[in-house]
Amino acid sequence: MSGSENRQLVLSRLPEALIGPEHFELRRVPIPRPGPGEVLVRTALISCDPTQRGWLNGRRTYTAEVRVGDVMPAWCAGEVVESNDPGFHAGERVWGALSWQDYAIARRDGTFPLSRIEDGVPLSYPLGVTGITGVTAYIGMLDLAKPRAGETVVVSAAAGATGSIAAQLAKLAGARVIGIAGGIEKCRWLVDQVGLDAAIDYRGQAVASRLKELCPAGVDVYYDNVGGAISDAVMLQMARFGRIALCGIISNGHGSQPSPPLNHSIMLMFRDVTVHGFMIFNHLQRFAAASAQLLAWMREGKLIAREDVMLGLENAPLAMRRLFEGKNIGKQLVQVR
Amino acid sequence: MSGSENRQLVLSRLPEALIGPEHFELRRVPIPRPGPGEVLVRTALISCDPTQRGWLNGRRTYTAEVRVGDVMPAWCAGEVVESNDPGFHAGERVWGALSWQDYAIARRDGTFPLSRIEDGVPLSYPLGVTGITGVTAYIGMLDLAKPRAGETVVVSAAAGATGSIAAQLAKLAGARVIGIAGGIEKCRWLVDQVGLDAAIDYRGQAVASRLKELCPAGVDVYYDNVGGAISDAVMLQMARFGRIALCGIISNGHGSQPSPPLNHSIMLMFRDVTVHGFMIFNHLQRFAAASAQLLAWMREGKLIAREDVMLGLENAPLAMRRLFEGKNIGKQLVQVR
Repeated sequence: MSGSENRQLVLSRLPEALIGPEHFELRRVPIPRPGPGEVLVRTALISCDPTQRGWLNGRRTYTAEVRVGDVMPAWCAGEVVESNDPGFHAGERVWGALSWQDYAIARRDGTFPLSRIEDGVPLSYPLGVTGITGVTAYIGMLDLAKPRAGETVVVSAAAGATGSIAAQLAKLAGARVIGIAGGIEKCRWLVDQVGLDAAIDYRGQAVASRLKELCPAGVDVYYDNVGGAISDAVMLQMARFGRIALCGIISNGHGSQPSPPLNHSIMLMFRDVTVHGFMIFNHLQRFAAASAQLLAWMREGKLIAREDVMLGLENAPLAMRRLFEGKNIGKQLVQVR
Repeated sequence: MSGSENRQLVLSRLPEALIGPEHFELRRVPIPRPGPGEVLVRTALISCDPTQRGWLNGRRTYTAEVRVGDVMPAWCAGEVVESNDPGFHAGERVWGALSWQDYAIARRDGTFPLSRIEDGVPLSYPLGVTGITGVTAYIGMLDLAKPRAGETVVVSAAAGATGSIAAQLAKLAGARVIGIAGGIEKCRWLVDQVGLDAAIDYRGQAVASRLKELCPAGVDVYYDNVGGAISDAVMLQMARFGRIALCGIISNGHGSQPSPPLNHSIMLMFRDVTVHGFMIFNHLQRFAAASAQLLAWMREGKLIAREDVMLGLENAPLAMRRLFEGKNIGKQLVQVR
C-alpha cells in the first residue's frame, strides 16, 4: 500500500452459510480526513468475533445489519493519526468499534466509543482478555453462573477466546473445570497449559459418556458457547440447582440455520436448573470493574490469554472463517500490516 | 360398595399417549388393617395433577415409576379411620401421598407425609390452593420469576389449577397479567372473575399476533405450564431482562413424545432472559411459609381457587384425561363417593 491510500474490505454479498473471502472485495480509496469532532485512526489490530457473523444475515438483530457495500465493522485497536476531538491526540493508542480498513474515522459515540488504551497495556488486551471477550466471560461465569469452590464446571468451545477465559475464571473461583474442545492439540493445551482438570475432544470422543465419567455427581455450571448436540449432552448431565450461562451458539455459526433449540428442557425442571441468557451489551455498567479485575489477574500471572494472529488486512475474511471451522486457539486477531 | 370392601384402581397397562379408563382396572379387596406405626385413611378427595402422567412412562424420572399392578398413587385428602401412630387419631382430617382407593394405609414418611388439615380449612385446599398446586405457583412466580409492579406477565394454561393461582399472584404483585387458555369460556372466566387484564384464546386466536398487540413493550415474566408452540410465540416477545418460570409441559401431556425443545434460544441471549426450571420437590423448605401465605390470602378474599370436581372413584382416569384435553377449569378433583 502507498502512504496515502486506504484499503477497505467491503461486503460484496451476504454469506449464506460459512463466511469467507468470497463475500468481500478490497477497495482502495484516499485516506479520509476527520471532520469536526472526529478522529482519524490507523488500524493496527482487528478482533474477530463470532457475533459478527450474525450481522450478515440481512436483518436487524441486537444491532443493525451490515449491508452490501458497507465496510465490515469490527472492534479494532490502533493509533490516532489526527484528531478534531480535544479528548484525543495524535499518537495515542485507542480501541473501539471501527472497521476492516487501514484508516477509520471514529467518533466518541456508540455502544463502544473510541477509548484510550492505558500505557503498559498491550494493544491486543482490549480486543481480548480485558475487552468484550474477557468481560463476556466474566459476566457469564462470575456474575451469572457463580461457580462455588468444589463445584464442577463445564465450558464448551473452551479453547476459544471467551471459553478459555471463562474456564480460568471458574478455576480461580475454586471449581473443578472440564473443557470441551475440538481436537487433541486444543485439549492438550487446556489441560497442560491452561490448567483445566480435564478436557473432552468432541471430535474424537463421545461427549455424553465422557461427561458421565468425568462428572458422576453432575454438572453444576455449564458455560455454553456452542449450543446443539454438545449442549444436549451436557443438559442430560446437569446437577440439581445447576446454572447454565448461555453465551453463544457457534454450532450454528454458518448462520444458515435457525438458532439450535434447547433440548431436554424437562431436565431444567427435574433438576431445578437456571439458564441465564445474556449479552454483554446488556451489562455495560459492569464493564469497567470487570475489565480492571481481568487486567489485574493478567498482571498477577493468574490468567493465560492466548492469541492466534493472522497477518494482513486482506486476510480478515479468512481469519473470520477460522472461528467457524474451529481452527483458532485463543483469541483470533488480524494484524493489519 | 359395601362397608367392608375397598375399591382400588390398578394400572393395567402403560398409556402410550392420552391417559384414560382403558389403562386401569377396578379391583375389590378387603379393607386393610393398619400395622404398627400405620394409619388407615378413608379417601374423600383425589387430586388430579399433570405430573402424574409422567409416572406412567415405564421409567424412573424425579420419582419412581408406577408399574402395572400398582394402585395409582395420587395426592388425596380424607379421614383417619384407625391409627397406630400416636400422632394421628380416628376422625381427623388428613392429606398426603395416598392412592386411587377407598381406603389407604399411610405412614409418616416420604416427601409428602400424612399431614393433619387444620380446623376450618376446606378439605380441598391442601390438594389445591394451599397445597402442591398453589405452592408451585407461589415458588415459580414469587420466589423465582419475581414480577414487579407495572411489569407485564403472561401465564400459559392460565385457567388451570396452577396457572390460575400463578396469574393471581402476579396481580397481587402489581403486574399487568395476560392469561393464555383454550376456549372462550376459560378466557371469559379469567378476565371477568379472576381479574386478569386480558386473555388469549389459543384455540380461536393467533397467539403470536395477540401477544404483540397486548405486550408492545414485551413480556417481562412468562409462567410456562405448556411448552411447545405457545411458548415459541411468547419467547419471541420476551422483554430485556425477562424471566421465565418453567413449570410444566402439558403441551406434551399425552406423554408419547420427548419433551418439547425451547426454541428461539438466541432470544434468551439477545434479551438477557433467565429461565428458571423448577420443581416443588426441590423447594420443600419453602412449603410451610408459602402455604400459610396462600391460606391467608384466601381468607382475605384476595385469591379465587376454582375447583372442577368429578364424582366417583371409578371416574378418576376420566378426570385425569380431562387435564390433557384441556377440559378442566381450575383444580381437577375427584370426590370418591
